[in-house]
Amino acid sequence: MRAVDLIQKKRDGGELTAKELTFLVDGYCDGGIPDYQMSAWAMAVLFRGMTPKETAALTLAMANSGDQVDLAPIAGVKVDKHSTGGVGDKTTLIIAPLVASAGVPVAKMSGRGLGHTGGTIDKLESIAGFQTELSREKFLEQVNELGLSVIGQSGNLAPADKKLYALRDVTATVESIPLIASSVMSKKIAAGADAIVLDVKTGSGAFMKTVEDSEKLAQAMVEIGTQVGRQTAAVISDMDQPLGFAIGNALEVREAIETLQGNGPSDLTELCLTLGAHMVVLGGKAATFAEAKELLQRQLDNGEALKKFKQFVEAQGGNASVADDVALLPQAAEQVEVKAASAGYISAIDAEQLGVAAMLLGAGRATKDATIDYSVGITIRKKVGDPVSEGDTLAVLHTCAQDAAVDDVSAKVRDAYAIAADKPAERPLLLSVVTAEGTVRYS
Amino acid sequence: MRAVDLIQKKRDGGELTAKELTFLVDGYCDGGIPDYQMSAWAMAVLFRGMTPKETAALTLAMANSGDQVDLAPIAGVKVDKHSTGGVGDKTTLIIAPLVASAGVPVAKMSGRGLGHTGGTIDKLESIAGFQTELSREKFLEQVNELGLSVIGQSGNLAPADKKLYALRDVTATVESIPLIASSVMSKKIAAGADAIVLDVKTGSGAFMKTVEDSEKLAQAMVEIGTQVGRQTAAVISDMDQPLGFAIGNALEVREAIETLQGNGPSDLTELCLTLGAHMVVLGGKAATFAEAKELLQRQLDNGEALKKFKQFVEAQGGNASVADDVALLPQAAEQVEVKAASAGYISAIDAEQLGVAAMLLGAGRATKDATIDYSVGITIRKKVGDPVSEGDTLAVLHTCAQDAAVDDVSAKVRDAYAIAADKPAERPLLLSVVTAEGTVRYS
Repeated sequence: MRAVDLIQKKRDGGELTAKELTFLVDGYCDGGIPDYQMSAWAMAVLFRGMTPKETAALTLAMANSGDQVDLAPIAGVKVDKHSTGGVGDKTTLIIAPLVASAGVPVAKMSGRGLGHTGGTIDKLESIAGFQTELSREKFLEQVNELGLSVIGQSGNLAPADKKLYALRDVTATVESIPLIASSVMSKKIAAGADAIVLDVKTGSGAFMKTVEDSEKLAQAMVEIGTQVGRQTAAVISDMDQPLGFAIGNALEVREAIETLQGNGPSDLTELCLTLGAHMVVLGGKAATFAEAKELLQRQLDNGEALKKFKQFVEAQGGNASVADDVALLPQAAEQVEVKAASAGYISAIDAEQLGVAAMLLGAGRATKDATIDYSVGITIRKKVGDPVSEGDTLAVLHTCAQDAAVDDVSAKVRDAYAIAADKPAERPLLLSVVTAEGTVRYS
Repeated sequence: MRAVDLIQKKRDGGELTAKELTFLVDGYCDGGIPDYQMSAWAMAVLFRGMTPKETAALTLAMANSGDQVDLAPIAGVKVDKHSTGGVGDKTTLIIAPLVASAGVPVAKMSGRGLGHTGGTIDKLESIAGFQTELSREKFLEQVNELGLSVIGQSGNLAPADKKLYALRDVTATVESIPLIASSVMSKKIAAGADAIVLDVKTGSGAFMKTVEDSEKLAQAMVEIGTQVGRQTAAVISDMDQPLGFAIGNALEVREAIETLQGNGPSDLTELCLTLGAHMVVLGGKAATFAEAKELLQRQLDNGEALKKFKQFVEAQGGNASVADDVALLPQAAEQVEVKAASAGYISAIDAEQLGVAAMLLGAGRATKDATIDYSVGITIRKKVGDPVSEGDTLAVLHTCAQDAAVDDVSAKVRDAYAIAADKPAERPLLLSVVTAEGTVRYS
């Protein structure tokens, strides 16, 4: 088998076999197939696409390229969740204890953030004492006892995907739905879950700008799950503005706790209940989505979800008192209000720009080795559709210094807001659900 | 400017500017742009194509990437000829003295062959004493005095093309008409001619299998010539069987001499007169194609073309007596006849397979450092359309040894012939002519 022949086959619209795709992935991983052949192949895939069978075979080959986590020692159906990125996305902090309290075991490995804001691991580490590095035994034991553990990704999960993604990034071959889908799913499959719920964002702040493209991506990922025997469901939600009000590590933990207390922002609460309910259904703890959602609402209302969060924090060495008193979380010394320069209605918020602003304050990493200040970030006061008068506070910066750099960030945050004379049409948060049975639009 | 953005622009169907293409070519040449970006770009070009403006800009950028030959010291319009490869192609040996005898200066740099059979330089070196390495001064002086010189390619012509071609070869990105066209033309432009005549082969033995594709390639090359101010014409001819009867270096020189004597095979003579006539028109030595062709026919008939060949061989140190006595050329010790296994009509001859057979006898180089035996090769006795009886000689192998390897070559040559019960339809040799004015089909 020669790589050049496989590139040509794909270029000419042929379907590569699982054996051929494994040859490419393994060869690329061990260095036998050079970057220049993989990038040409990726460009051919971008133009020709891949069949569901090819996409699944590529995914499995990448999942098999490194360590595979074995979650078999955990009883029950293990359900994982993945969000396709987003600014101010603290859903894992809420959903993990919520569904665990409903009896679905959550054995989750999360990443650190590179880019705008911290990842789930960074957010958890803003709780004093919280340990994100547990031994494999301790991790499995905790899930079996408590139903929940979240640790930092260790080991070598899907290294082929990591290498291929870095190559695609510099060869204009990122924007291929089968390649994006196989990248996400290869890591989830290597991470060992039995079932997967995907939180797919759409809109200006997301990778996929239209509902149609987001649905296509979701369908491709669900199809992979089906092909490889992991039940998968995807929820497509609007990401035209940040989720909730908080951006920044400790600020997001605080908002997550408030949500678990039943006092969270309505968009965040709704998305968490929806994603969580799909996890509960896949985990076999409810027969229907409606039943699952009711169950989770009950777990919020009766305090069981918050209690599970406390047990979880305590089990991993963190100060669980934060769940009763969020003032115990790191707090920034300064609060700087960003005010509206004109009156009208908020017509749009550039989520990505707010993410960059939060990073500039110190909430995220511009480079891999940068350190994070857990206390800093942004809290939004106005969201899309809200009326504003000139001088109203749009958002508050939480920062450690009051200097010229902060003025720049203020300007950036102000610029992220668009104010129009007329009230914009309401945009629903939840757009569609994709399962193996098909795609259902909410509206 | 970033390479990844230019790849994306092309991927999305945009038109790259001359500045952008020069950035890519120069960056690739100096190593700043890696192979993996160029191969992704080449694949995007394969799918999206290039506009005539882009193709011309790419060609110029590649032509400018190395040495540029300055033929200004030679008086008159210098016309170059290029053949897109073919088995048994000895046209340069005939056309160069033929058109020089008609007053068109020919300052030609040719390559050595890698693959089936030797290149023009190898063929000339089969004449005892012939020197293909002349100083630049001597080369220009000889063309000014005699109207003709053919030397080996020296210096560093279009290194970007060389590097890109090697990459395309291993990334399934060869089959792009704008990339093929710019590759050919970049070398011709760097070689300094004022006008260019292209000999484009079509059919089973050629790179382009159909007349339509060959015309597209020819049109792309003529368009480049027009864009960069080098008048260009292309003749498309059938390459479903070898041209003439001889394959192998000295055998082809012999056939070229016979053609210059007026006793050549009709297909070879016709193609040489046609290509030569276009050169004469572009060189300004005749007003019309018909006039030019008549002039060249006269130069064959009156011996002037042969005389020019002799002067040319003598000027470069070769034994010019070969033109009067072809027996002075190297001759192989053994002649082995390949016989027909059945009766009927020759319906097809696989030219490429005959080329490989000649190489196995020692006429070409399997590797860059292999040596060539000038004397060996194949002479064809039957061509397409000829009737044969069982046991008739199809071809004769000229070889130095009579061993088992020769039996294998015999079998290969026999297999290259297809014999059918019915006489095949006649295929015209000349198919179409492409000039800046348009494309004209012969039939």
